[in-house]
Amino acid sequence: MSSAASVGEGPRILEVRTKILKKNDELAREMRTNFAAAGVRVVNLVSSPGSGKTRLLTETLRRLHEMGRAVAAIVGDLETDNDARRLATSGAPVRQIMTHGLCHLEAEMIQDALAAWGADGLAVASLETLFIENVGNLVCPTSWDLGESLRVVLMSVTEGEDKPLKYPGLFNTADCVVITKCDLAEACGFDRAAAVDAIQQVRPGVRLLETSAVTGAGLEAWLAAVS
Amino acid sequence: MSSAASVGEGPRILEVRTKILKKNDELAREMRTNFAAAGVRVVNLVSSPGSGKTRLLTETLRRLHEMGRAVAAIVGDLETDNDARRLATSGAPVRQIMTHGLCHLEAEMIQDALAAWGADGLAVASLETLFIENVGNLVCPTSWDLGESLRVVLMSVTEGEDKPLKYPGLFNTADCVVITKCDLAEACGFDRAAAVDAIQQVRPGVRLLETSAVTGAGLEAWLAAVS
Repeated sequence: MSSAASVGEGPRILEVRTKILKKNDELAREMRTNFAAAGVRVVNLVSSPGSGKTRLLTETLRRLHEMGRAVAAIVGDLETDNDARRLATSGAPVRQIMTHGLCHLEAEMIQDALAAWGADGLAVASLETLFIENVGNLVCPTSWDLGESLRVVLMSVTEGEDKPLKYPGLFNTADCVVITKCDLAEACGFDRAAAVDAIQQVRPGVRLLETSAVTGAGLEAWLAAVS
Repeated sequence: MSSAASVGEGPRILEVRTKILKKNDELAREMRTNFAAAGVRVVNLVSSPGSGKTRLLTETLRRLHEMGRAVAAIVGDLETDNDARRLATSGAPVRQIMTHGLCHLEAEMIQDALAAWGADGLAVASLETLFIENVGNLVCPTSWDLGESLRVVLMSVTEGEDKPLKYPGLFNTADCVVITKCDLAEACGFDRAAAVDAIQQVRPGVRLLETSAVTGAGLEAWLAAVS
């Protein structure tokens, strides 16, 4: 659900939507306070479908898990637990949320997933970093705070350099932008300068990282940023 | 806006949403009848951001326009008229809709764009094919009928083979699926058999095309399908 009004929407639906977002914001703030008190860093990964969130996160979890860091991940998709199964190959605890058609994750879904995890014996408060892989969507996750301490927007070199200009809402909320699949940059004629310029136009001064989960390029700086 | 319910939604917002979708459906049906009466084919292109809709459509418009076919395009983005400018290099008439944050196009937006075009002197009824490039989003355009005669879902080889399984709603509404950027298949280790299997699981028997707007591969079959 986008924050913008549908053509056919009247004041009534906007009022209801505002209330729902307010309720989400309140819960997210409470969760953020609790995460901070427990020393848990929460990283919310948002991007288009297919920009490489799962691939980068699998490699991230694997490396941090092998270093003995207490990390875990929650992943949202409309259907399938494909991504949870991929992420679980890292050795870290992983939980799948299926939204069954909904285009974004909400704070209450994260709260419920953490409660279920707690009941299964995972002490959430003992985590150093909790990663949340959002539903692949460059629009709708924008307005939904999940209580994260770091919102990371990924864009792959295959997507086109002007994505930040065309989807400024989400890029505007980013604490960090990661350009992914850099190993494919040459094959798809990626114009790095144009991409960096588009990012800076929308979110001046935002932290920018460039990675390839295939070659490992840029992963050390990325790991340092999120752990 | 997705058709699925947000966690925080009660029956009230669902009722309002159902009414809005019903109003959109009624308008879309009326538009479809009018398009059919005028002999205008309408093709709605939907996909993730960055899957190559604009690139494929620019090449499509260019070739059809050069063949003397009466084609035009409407393109939706949250912000910028970048895509309209790219499409206009084809020589065909192009109109940009900016949704300012909304995650999909709606029938009323198409109706308004066509009315504005009519006022500018373009006789919509004289078109053979009107292409609509939707907002890049694999979820929210699903529920919004635009009066199209053909809904085409694009997926690029760079996005991952299981997208149809993870976003079944949109793929379920497709009349045709196009695998794009086939020139990059080898570079990104695309598993064609897995992708075709995923498409067939979600939408058995759907027409499948494979294209590269860069090399021109598959474009003849694509042009035949949409003109």
